[in-house]
Amino acid sequence: MQATLTDLQSEVARLRHELQSLALEHKGDEQITVADYLLTRLEQLGVSSIFGVPGDFNMRMSIFKDYVEDHPTIKWIGNCNELNAAYAADGYARVKPHSIGVVVTTFGVGELSAINGIAGAFSEMVPVLHIAGVPSTTQLKTRPLLHHTLGDARFDVFTKAAEQVTISQAMLANKVQATADIDRILIDCVSRARPVYLSLPTDMVSEKVSTKRLKIPLSRILPPNNPDVEEFVLDEIIKVVREAESNVVVLVDACVSRHDVQDEVKDLLAATHFPVYSTPMGKTTIDEDYDRYGGIYIGSISEPVIKERVESAKLILSIGALKSDFNTGMFTYRIPTTHTIELHSDCVLVRHAHFPNIGMKQLLPKLTSRLKDFRCQASELVVSKFKLEVPVEETSDITQSYFWPRVGTFFRKKDVIVTETGTSNFGILDVPLPEQTIFVSQILYGSIGWAVGSTLGAALAARDRGLGRVILFIGDGSMQLTVQELSTMTRHGLTPIIFLINNSGYNIERNLHGMNRKWTSLLTTLGDLNGTLSRSYTVRNKPELEKLLDDPQFANAGKIQLVEVVMDKYDTPRALKMAAELSTKYAEQSAKQF
Amino acid sequence: MQATLTDLQSEVARLRHELQSLALEHKGDEQITVADYLLTRLEQLGVSSIFGVPGDFNMRMSIFKDYVEDHPTIKWIGNCNELNAAYAADGYARVKPHSIGVVVTTFGVGELSAINGIAGAFSEMVPVLHIAGVPSTTQLKTRPLLHHTLGDARFDVFTKAAEQVTISQAMLANKVQATADIDRILIDCVSRARPVYLSLPTDMVSEKVSTKRLKIPLSRILPPNNPDVEEFVLDEIIKVVREAESNVVVLVDACVSRHDVQDEVKDLLAATHFPVYSTPMGKTTIDEDYDRYGGIYIGSISEPVIKERVESAKLILSIGALKSDFNTGMFTYRIPTTHTIELHSDCVLVRHAHFPNIGMKQLLPKLTSRLKDFRCQASELVVSKFKLEVPVEETSDITQSYFWPRVGTFFRKKDVIVTETGTSNFGILDVPLPEQTIFVSQILYGSIGWAVGSTLGAALAARDRGLGRVILFIGDGSMQLTVQELSTMTRHGLTPIIFLINNSGYNIERNLHGMNRKWTSLLTTLGDLNGTLSRSYTVRNKPELEKLLDDPQFANAGKIQLVEVVMDKYDTPRALKMAAELSTKYAEQSAKQF
Repeated sequence: MQATLTDLQSEVARLRHELQSLALEHKGDEQITVADYLLTRLEQLGVSSIFGVPGDFNMRMSIFKDYVEDHPTIKWIGNCNELNAAYAADGYARVKPHSIGVVVTTFGVGELSAINGIAGAFSEMVPVLHIAGVPSTTQLKTRPLLHHTLGDARFDVFTKAAEQVTISQAMLANKVQATADIDRILIDCVSRARPVYLSLPTDMVSEKVSTKRLKIPLSRILPPNNPDVEEFVLDEIIKVVREAESNVVVLVDACVSRHDVQDEVKDLLAATHFPVYSTPMGKTTIDEDYDRYGGIYIGSISEPVIKERVESAKLILSIGALKSDFNTGMFTYRIPTTHTIELHSDCVLVRHAHFPNIGMKQLLPKLTSRLKDFRCQASELVVSKFKLEVPVEETSDITQSYFWPRVGTFFRKKDVIVTETGTSNFGILDVPLPEQTIFVSQILYGSIGWAVGSTLGAALAARDRGLGRVILFIGDGSMQLTVQELSTMTRHGLTPIIFLINNSGYNIERNLHGMNRKWTSLLTTLGDLNGTLSRSYTVRNKPELEKLLDDPQFANAGKIQLVEVVMDKYDTPRALKMAAELSTKYAEQSAKQF
Repeated sequence: MQATLTDLQSEVARLRHELQSLALEHKGDEQITVADYLLTRLEQLGVSSIFGVPGDFNMRMSIFKDYVEDHPTIKWIGNCNELNAAYAADGYARVKPHSIGVVVTTFGVGELSAINGIAGAFSEMVPVLHIAGVPSTTQLKTRPLLHHTLGDARFDVFTKAAEQVTISQAMLANKVQATADIDRILIDCVSRARPVYLSLPTDMVSEKVSTKRLKIPLSRILPPNNPDVEEFVLDEIIKVVREAESNVVVLVDACVSRHDVQDEVKDLLAATHFPVYSTPMGKTTIDEDYDRYGGIYIGSISEPVIKERVESAKLILSIGALKSDFNTGMFTYRIPTTHTIELHSDCVLVRHAHFPNIGMKQLLPKLTSRLKDFRCQASELVVSKFKLEVPVEETSDITQSYFWPRVGTFFRKKDVIVTETGTSNFGILDVPLPEQTIFVSQILYGSIGWAVGSTLGAALAARDRGLGRVILFIGDGSMQLTVQELSTMTRHGLTPIIFLINNSGYNIERNLHGMNRKWTSLLTTLGDLNGTLSRSYTVRNKPELEKLLDDPQFANAGKIQLVEVVMDKYDTPRALKMAAELSTKYAEQSAKQF
């Protein structure tokens, strides 16, 4: 059902775009290279940075990359390797709504190196364009025994792999179809919030094509909801809300930001005053200092007061849910279906009833106008302030229970906070973040090492948008997977603050070796030769951490900074400890069911 | 045709093995875990190191890895990331004939991160086992929304991707079939010299299975040649050799070592005294100080005297050819098919005639005994000594034309020499290597960054085999892709010598950024905290390089060493310069043909 709907959506978008383009056929026709056509499209989508690793094909080097470097507004960000580049494109797209991330790799070796980053973008619904520079159209036909191939003339292997983790693909085989193909996958990318794949033969890069289509900017086009069904759904929702006597709690999740309904949800909340909670993947979708916001709901792992408030509500209006294991406290929601309405990008569920093809984007404004009458009653519902005190502890060691609330006081409005899978993802959950901060994490896909690449992309996007500081939390075990990308940050003058939690690689993945690192030498070894572009610190106890966090020079350094935070290797954030227990229990239970 | 043959080969091997196993059915039956069964098989294959990155599944951590760590003879080599681990498994297998490389990753995120390394092993015919730790058999059926998935219940996506780059796969779904499945893919791995894939659910790891099959060791079993056809082929070959009046040159290529006919070829050469040349991918298959060895033939890129000797022969007996672009000087062999006999693992070509299903492994001994009568005549064929003088140059800069012959004098018997794609692969070609050295490179697949991971694996294999020093040549551009793996070398007490050619990332891939590195701080930042386990040097001119190479302490340091060799960024080895020119020409020509 879902597949059909999304296919139809993209087909509708494509056809509309084709119609508009045809209407321009009679107008003047200028010529432009395929590379410049593509770059113009990306510029229209707000892309200012392109990630990737150059690759030769036939020693003719990275032809497309040269076009990028010549482009007036788009910058080529040369990455240290392809996986890091894909992670960066993902991080960029997450911090730049309505734009996309772009990663360029070479045939075979390059694209396969990046594929795990693309899969992560698929899983987490992040719009990323993967451009693979491939052999010439002639070579793709004659299939000689070229380097970067599997040596068996299967030139389509890499595309087949890409098809598994992208929602749309184009192989630019001739210039007649090239511009339509490019437009098709880009529309899919922005409309469906998933990665797409473009195979770009060396000889196509400089082919000339018409500029005509460029006059119509690409846009995210969704099919309209069937008005009769929509009206029916609205009535059903109102009925259920009424039955619940306005005792309604809104739960925002990942797809609110992924499917671009953040504004619609804010309007709904303002109009209704319904209390709102967030899942881990929805964190910061609603400002965490909003007075009707109650914190993070994560099933049995929730703070008790939050669990009580959410689960005792008579109705949960869930928006953009993505109920993955870690996002739901290992599937421990205690909310009966009869107490639930779910709004999704492509369907609505009211209790047990499914209403396919009713998308939330168009539904929400109408729902808001119907629900505003409940405001008076809803305003009476109590929301406990989401807060976290810094505990007073006897030990001067930096404990997990102390560290997270303490760094919480360091954050500022508009900061971008990136957390790595494991300790950091769970540690940050209980910490209320200031208004307009953006929380970036990969809770569903959970690829370790992702956060370093992602921070690079996030920092470039944050610079574009005039946001605040970019702050990364990562463990020493994860850092080693993608550590070289720190040098790319330095090279581009980016100034993230990196909290490296050195707990000897223990937590989430036991024995992720990689302990013995001179962490504070990293930045000077990788990029900052004179030591003028970076600062590194080690903090081993609370006074050292306090002093650093309170130092205005640290808070506003304007250079890349790495703080090695030494913590006990058996210490674990509250939420992670509970998740681990529930996870074991869940695995045992599901084994028994068979 | 090839697919059918290899399929048949593996089926024959499997059936034989099954028959032998059945014969043991009545014997005593001990129980062992699946993990230990697998490890025992790997031990039987001579595996002493297993590469990988641990991953949880459902926080139950790396169950299989724990078994590896408990194993008395197999060591767990924790890598910094999965791609590096796959590269290491590849390097290990290359230096340890008759064994295989093994890499362990976790579901989804881990296996996709490694896939480019597996693809490289496929391309270059290296036997590698990729073990992916996946969710439990129950979860694979119920497909809950687990982390590390694409969020759409497609749990088979990663296996589908693996199928593209491995020749055999097994998903251990039940314990009844588990041991037969393990045996099947391992036999395929060793018989067909390609990677295989094992999907290992968390709950299968500790399941108990019978030890019975373990009594029959796995082996590389090839189907016998049809005796009539083989006899016919031998007659044909003799006829052609006679016509050529013994003016025969043997050309050895990659598949001689990959398909394990090194000894058979040496016997042939000893018996016939035919002159022998090697392709780049065959380098060191025949000792380069052998008196009938003439050097590297690479089409138009060959040294003129080599080109002349090979192309003027009346007959080329090509053994194990793999005619890829870089391996053939961009397809510039000037040898008519009527002057060619090709022996392959699964067929023989005599001039224009193809003889499928005649494998060289069984054919070669018979051919040797038929050809030894030509020895007298063949001994008269002149072979110019393969040598390379260190040029006397005015500049004190370290030039490419000086560097390669100069390091050539530094090499010793039994050294293992690893070169990275690009400058190093081409620079080393003209350098004669001492007897019993092993040359390791990835000329067909050419994935940059491969050599660092590969060096780790090669160094472990070399230690097992009591070989000499492991010496890596790599450019600064490539080093950054996989640099973190240096720390794994230090952690395991490995002592490679790394020549890092710092030409500001220029060559093979222009603008592979990554210049600004404090290269000599790398080893102390990554692993050698006290500076006692490593030494680093920068050499900027000839006297500095000479002094270092002549220093016995450097030559026998017994610790990991990194030498940053500063070279001009526009300087290029002779062979690379010619390859680049030919490559452009080739691309233009093939474009014209259409």
